Amino acid sequence: MTKKPQKKTTHTIWGGRFAAQPDALMVEVNASIDFDKRLYHEDITASQAHAEMLGAQGIISKADAKAICKGLETIRAEITAGKFQFSKTLEDIHMNIESRLKELIGAAAGRLHTARSRNDQVATDLRLWVRGQCGEIDRALMALQDALLTQAAQHTKTLMPGMTHLQTAQPVSFAHHLMAYVEMFGRDRTRFTDARARMNESPLGAAALAGTPFPIDRDSTAKKLGFDAPMANSMDAVSARDFAMEYLAAAAITATHLSRLAEELILWSSERFGFIRLSDAFSTGSSIMPQKRNPDAAELVRAKPARITGALITLLGIVKALPMSYGKDLQEDKEPIFDASDHLNMALAVMEGMLRDMHVFPEIMAEALNAGYATATDLADWLVANLNLPFREAHHITGQVVALAESRGVRLDALTLTDLQSVHSALRADALDALNPATSLAARQSFGGTAPAQVKAAIASARKRFINKKGA
Amino acid sequence: MTKKPQKKTTHTIWGGRFAAQPDALMVEVNASIDFDKRLYHEDITASQAHAEMLGAQGIISKADAKAICKGLETIRAEITAGKFQFSKTLEDIHMNIESRLKELIGAAAGRLHTARSRNDQVATDLRLWVRGQCGEIDRALMALQDALLTQAAQHTKTLMPGMTHLQTAQPVSFAHHLMAYVEMFGRDRTRFTDARARMNESPLGAAALAGTPFPIDRDSTAKKLGFDAPMANSMDAVSARDFAMEYLAAAAITATHLSRLAEELILWSSERFGFIRLSDAFSTGSSIMPQKRNPDAAELVRAKPARITGALITLLGIVKALPMSYGKDLQEDKEPIFDASDHLNMALAVMEGMLRDMHVFPEIMAEALNAGYATATDLADWLVANLNLPFREAHHITGQVVALAESRGVRLDALTLTDLQSVHSALRADALDALNPATSLAARQSFGGTAPAQVKAAIASARKRFINKKGA
Amino acid sequence: MTKKPQKKTTHTIWGGRFAAQPDALMVEVNASIDFDKRLYHEDITASQAHAEMLGAQGIISKADAKAICKGLETIRAEITAGKFQFSKTLEDIHMNIESRLKELIGAAAGRLHTARSRNDQVATDLRLWVRGQCGEIDRALMALQDALLTQAAQHTKTLMPGMTHLQTAQPVSFAHHLMAYVEMFGRDRTRFTDARARMNESPLGAAALAGTPFPIDRDSTAKKLGFDAPMANSMDAVSARDFAMEYLAAAAITATHLSRLAEELILWSSERFGFIRLSDAFSTGSSIMPQKRNPDAAELVRAKPARITGALITLLGIVKALPMSYGKDLQEDKEPIFDASDHLNMALAVMEGMLRDMHVFPEIMAEALNAGYATATDLADWLVANLNLPFREAHHITGQVVALAESRGVRLDALTLTDLQSVHSALRADALDALNPATSLAARQSFGGTAPAQVKAAIASARKRFINKKGA
Amino acid sequence: MTKKPQKKTTHTIWGGRFAAQPDALMVEVNASIDFDKRLYHEDITASQAHAEMLGAQGIISKADAKAICKGLETIRAEITAGKFQFSKTLEDIHMNIESRLKELIGAAAGRLHTARSRNDQVATDLRLWVRGQCGEIDRALMALQDALLTQAAQHTKTLMPGMTHLQTAQPVSFAHHLMAYVEMFGRDRTRFTDARARMNESPLGAAALAGTPFPIDRDSTAKKLGFDAPMANSMDAVSARDFAMEYLAAAAITATHLSRLAEELILWSSERFGFIRLSDAFSTGSSIMPQKRNPDAAELVRAKPARITGALITLLGIVKALPMSYGKDLQEDKEPIFDASDHLNMALAVMEGMLRDMHVFPEIMAEALNAGYATATDLADWLVANLNLPFREAHHITGQVVALAESRGVRLDALTLTDLQSVHSALRADALDALNPATSLAARQSFGGTAPAQVKAAIASARKRFINKKGA
Repeated sequence: MTKKPQKKTTHTIWGGRFAAQPDALMVEVNASIDFDKRLYHEDITASQAHAEMLGAQGIISKADAKAICKGLETIRAEITAGKFQFSKTLEDIHMNIESRLKELIGAAAGRLHTARSRNDQVATDLRLWVRGQCGEIDRALMALQDALLTQAAQHTKTLMPGMTHLQTAQPVSFAHHLMAYVEMFGRDRTRFTDARARMNESPLGAAALAGTPFPIDRDSTAKKLGFDAPMANSMDAVSARDFAMEYLAAAAITATHLSRLAEELILWSSERFGFIRLSDAFSTGSSIMPQKRNPDAAELVRAKPARITGALITLLGIVKALPMSYGKDLQEDKEPIFDASDHLNMALAVMEGMLRDMHVFPEIMAEALNAGYATATDLADWLVANLNLPFREAHHITGQVVALAESRGVRLDALTLTDLQSVHSALRADALDALNPATSLAARQSFGGTAPAQVKAAIASARKRFINKKGA
Repeated sequence: MTKKPQKKTTHTIWGGRFAAQPDALMVEVNASIDFDKRLYHEDITASQAHAEMLGAQGIISKADAKAICKGLETIRAEITAGKFQFSKTLEDIHMNIESRLKELIGAAAGRLHTARSRNDQVATDLRLWVRGQCGEIDRALMALQDALLTQAAQHTKTLMPGMTHLQTAQPVSFAHHLMAYVEMFGRDRTRFTDARARMNESPLGAAALAGTPFPIDRDSTAKKLGFDAPMANSMDAVSARDFAMEYLAAAAITATHLSRLAEELILWSSERFGFIRLSDAFSTGSSIMPQKRNPDAAELVRAKPARITGALITLLGIVKALPMSYGKDLQEDKEPIFDASDHLNMALAVMEGMLRDMHVFPEIMAEALNAGYATATDLADWLVANLNLPFREAHHITGQVVALAESRGVRLDALTLTDLQSVHSALRADALDALNPATSLAARQSFGGTAPAQVKAAIASARKRFINKKGA
Repeated sequence: MTKKPQKKTTHTIWGGRFAAQPDALMVEVNASIDFDKRLYHEDITASQAHAEMLGAQGIISKADAKAICKGLETIRAEITAGKFQFSKTLEDIHMNIESRLKELIGAAAGRLHTARSRNDQVATDLRLWVRGQCGEIDRALMALQDALLTQAAQHTKTLMPGMTHLQTAQPVSFAHHLMAYVEMFGRDRTRFTDARARMNESPLGAAALAGTPFPIDRDSTAKKLGFDAPMANSMDAVSARDFAMEYLAAAAITATHLSRLAEELILWSSERFGFIRLSDAFSTGSSIMPQKRNPDAAELVRAKPARITGALITLLGIVKALPMSYGKDLQEDKEPIFDASDHLNMALAVMEGMLRDMHVFPEIMAEALNAGYATATDLADWLVANLNLPFREAHHITGQVVALAESRGVRLDALTLTDLQSVHSALRADALDALNPATSLAARQSFGGTAPAQVKAAIASARKRFINKKGA
Repeated sequence: MTKKPQKKTTHTIWGGRFAAQPDALMVEVNASIDFDKRLYHEDITASQAHAEMLGAQGIISKADAKAICKGLETIRAEITAGKFQFSKTLEDIHMNIESRLKELIGAAAGRLHTARSRNDQVATDLRLWVRGQCGEIDRALMALQDALLTQAAQHTKTLMPGMTHLQTAQPVSFAHHLMAYVEMFGRDRTRFTDARARMNESPLGAAALAGTPFPIDRDSTAKKLGFDAPMANSMDAVSARDFAMEYLAAAAITATHLSRLAEELILWSSERFGFIRLSDAFSTGSSIMPQKRNPDAAELVRAKPARITGALITLLGIVKALPMSYGKDLQEDKEPIFDASDHLNMALAVMEGMLRDMHVFPEIMAEALNAGYATATDLADWLVANLNLPFREAHHITGQVVALAESRGVRLDALTLTDLQSVHSALRADALDALNPATSLAARQSFGGTAPAQVKAAIASARKRFINKKGA
């Protein structure tokens, strides 16, 4: 229900022409201060750059510029120290800061907003914040790669069932399996790097939407804020949110990769698999079942792509069909971005921790591998390489060998030469070797294959390509 | 990075078998207290029902049951008054409350968790909360329908251009247009009613997943909590979240309807349309452009379906492919539900406020209508009804009449009989009448049509069907 | 690139006033015949109802009405027989049919479109189609429930590890596990039933958006088409798509349930679990690995909720912020609906087939259960019930018992009384019984619990509630 | 219901070990040939590269390699000519082609599949296809930019209301408005370029998941197929779909940009705006309302981001939590990719066509501008620049001037100096100049601003940066 209009006061910055005050409900729905206060650091830094530029260009006096910058620094300290009083009636972080600035330095505070608008201001703040996150996430991804590489280095000869369709396919090393993720996360990092580079242009100076008649120097503010250049079109500058969509898309893809690994940790640490044990630090118990050791952290990581995808969908949906230039709909961009960032960072840190602490049981992996006829393909390959059979025919013969082992209830390498020859008379003793998992592993010497030599080279290459590189 | 394990303390309720304490990071990712504290009311009510039943069944003593219920009531008061100290180490609302209960009543507190688990407990709490929201939203939707009906009652003869493709199609009354939304919101209400009815079964007593050997009475707790019955399968009870998905889907659909109306308010209040004026209370100004009157509230409402759809996607994504029964992934269900609920409620209230305050300009609507050749179909219909032409031929003739008016730059009803006859000689004077918008409006007497008599009847029917009905 | 305008021809039904013909590209983007031809049956049925009503009301002659109905029946036969020539230039199914009708019966065909528009026509067609699907899916869900009930009936005493977090929690029967899905699919069915009931109102007669001056009888066409009533507002009638969103939401939720079961089939049929074997008919092999038996069908079912959720998002996104009344955006509603329906139906049929064919290995399930300390909660419950300990204390003691068994590497029920008493001296011989899985199972007699008696009753109840009920 | 198993035949390539044939339903759900036949070109090209390499490495004979390549070329011609018989029982494009190859060249066909698997084969095909699309879309975006630049060049002095919140904000030129989109589409292009570069690594040779013991040369096949390098990890190679997610994300963002422009075309061509007229070629009429000119093409473009976002969500949902390495779920990746690509390409072409054909009405834009107090900010800026008032004070004074004009019902530049001075006595005659829209436009000389000189420079720069650059 519509609540009673509030008593008219003087705080609203756009109220000059309005007869009535905002409905209390309107204050509630309109205010963004509860979430956009997270931008205070970026807002202050950008305001300082703007004020300095206004002073340097003679648009405001150098003294005013100096007073503004100093006052803003005081405010930054107040907010950081948790001593700042945020007000919902002041709507957003921009007006909360400007209002406090007026208390601190008086009338000069009113000159800060010359030649800019909240439209370019918030676009600048958000870009700076997201740009910063690209760096954060890059660093967290690198740490995660490092954790994977550290584990991989110990397991280049640890045999496990390489699976497709969750069925044993061929022997792989645990290191090789982990290295797949190192590659995924490596691509994820470049996605953030690319997004960061693309978004690194300054909206500041676009003003409301059309630019400004004041002789501002957009190159100067861009440079001060670490942007490569000012954005080339003022309407685009205030209304574009593709930088945020791209960031969320990169985050969703990264979270999807994390969820694949999380799923595997859950599987591997289940009693039926038993391949690994997560540390106590990353397990939880049950309030009712005393024997439980639950992989809660991994499950939470597994859920994150759904959440981050939700954030991406939200932003894509908000911007769809939005006419130029700024619309208030865009205020809804921040919470999904903040939420997605927080949860991606959390998931990355937790995953890194789980991997570093994880205990591996190579014997159980080996046992699993032996149960799965994993070297059948090797026999098929032997038939091709040694008897010159077409692969399709070799595949058929091997299928019969597997059926034989299955009917006997034995491992493939427990079959005798006589057994093999009962299926195809030209099979020789060295075909038996092909059925040994370690032989199979060592044989996959093709580039990118699971042979220990290949994987060691891959680890070395990955360390060089990915670790200690400067982040985005 | 993995932080140092915390010093071992005694607070963790599942720690009996664990050697090391949770990683600080794990506490962070695992704790849900920051958001699930919103369930405190439901959690306490459900615990009281459980304790009473345990007492009545002789599973715990009546004295213990009484002490538990009283202690819980004290805690409810403490939380409501904002005096409760929530602790992240205690993970969630359930353990925060139980821990405080122990402080208040001692060892008996430990008996509350007999024959239940956090799995059925949280499922019960969340169902109760969502069930309550169905009622809240139903009431808000009814209030919104009332606001629409109030406006509609004043505008059954207010002519406006009925549009398809944002092009003038045929005359409609403003009341008729608003009544379309009354119908949509009416269906939305029944969606929440249906969802509420379907979810109104009690998970309590499912325990961890398998039921319990204690002689509990699930009918009794179900009844105390207003559920129709206990859920029929204990594994389903702890792992089902379809009730929440359905709720979010109903919310997303409702928000979509709201966004259509919001879009129209934005269009209508733009200078180019000028059909309505939103009140000062629901408009905002600009920090830089003093002349602006921005429909911020409507724009925020327009954005909400994207947000709520994001929440729906999140939950659908979380539950996808989740094996039985409870997985920690499900902890991620609450924030999207809370967020979607808050924003839907806000959007409904704001929309109601905007509609009640909205000022309508019938003359401008009429002017817009006249510019749009809106009665062309009426001429085609006249040709069918009076000259017995097939509709397709009538359509063609009318197209030529429109082309004539367009070339002259005049309204359709400014054409003369001679003009009409220059296109088709059998056209008569009463065909001219058909070109008058008010005549056109009055003629659409088919059920559900825009004729004032029809719309008045529709308003009366809607008042009867929708208003003062008891909510979900 | 813009292609050359086509030579002017006479086929376009709305071309009377247009100087140039549609761009070839425009024909391509605008035409919907490639997908909306699936509505031919509904389109013809609705047109017949409309024509009969026009005849009965004297709006067209009875002879024309009869000719139209007969011609339409001929066309239905032609399309069903695959003998109909669809034309993209005729845009959609409506015009393809009307154009052919003109060939068949001449000028009278032009009278069919009296007092209606493609807007109400397509809304009617699509409602009829979706309504039909609600019935199809209900039937498929019932068949699936029947398959589950059939398996369940054989496994009320088949012990398996009931899991939470993919860790062994407590013993459950395989029947109990399956019955969780019977409940889920039961709720899914009612969702389609509710959606069907809500959508079962006729848009026909709303005409373009405003109703019509012709004395039509909307009740009559509604009744002929099996609708409960005509829709109450003509603008709502042509622009509402909430019925389709609700249908897609119900489909997405159902698919999510299917994917949970599919995930379990994949897990259970993996070598590490070995609980079940999918039949050859629902397994596939590998083109390279001869030993593989892949659960492809289950994996495809697992993927479907993503696809159907995509369809839901698409429709929610299309309708968001769409002003009244019909917009061409709505043409994009059909493909996601068709695609989601096809894949849900397929997934339901495949799941039913897999379940009916599935071979279960109770011994392996039992072996898995024994490895997991699944009866620890039973010991805790014994301590509460027999020694009157608070549950929290009992939980702690049991944790120590589990730690003991773990350190010994034995099952819980392999511990001796002396072992138990070394942890808590008051433990008695009957506490050992509590550690037996079958005892544990039988003890969970609470309503909805896993005790065989409960599950048998649940199966009987479900057969009564769900099977042979008439579908939606 | 489960259909009867098919009679056992010999065609299935993996059937060696299977006793029963696939269920007919299984064939239906499992087969991908209906959609993956679109990959035939890529499949053949990749197979030729593979065969040549096998020959060069001596893994198969050079004669066989040659026969295979020639046979494949024949098949390519057959498919292109529409003469190829696709079979659903052969499951997919790979087996359809290989089966035909056997017919054409006999046993040698069976050697093609040596040292590869369908897993790396399909990953290669799809990468090639998506890579090709990146180029297609880049070219279409460039053509669209060219259409925008062509229109912009004619309208650097065409005044229109620059809007925020769909309310008149400040004067901008129509060229400036269009140039915002040139920038957006420019960033979109680089997103496809980056995606293309990142995906340009070859999965071929990863075989099933682990690499192969055959001495293959992955560098050689990578080079032949235009890849930069082979992928570094074989498990990653067969299971990674981030390249496709990134592509879909770029497509969704581009579609979102298109939808913003589409929304504006719809608004601008509405009767209330009247800013532009879409050509007959891109408009449609109504089947019932002869006067209609509907922007159907623009509405369809507006809907596309919902559809493409749906595709993105589908793929993100499919890959979430999917364990290594290949799972059949991934077969569901193709249809969303194909659908999104087709519709994005269509939307780009249609948008280009609409823009090239669009007729602009500068007088109506100017009239709209004049009605909106668009130069109020200019007066505020004048007060700051000339009277050295703080901006906040200037904003307040200007608000009062707007209120005065509003109460008089006149344009801002229709106020007299006396009027102005009644609000603030220091206002001078040149302040009146500031209120003229053309003056306002010309004054916004800041970089990226709307002043004609700035926009001309922006057009020249954009032509240089964007047009005739080689596509992705």
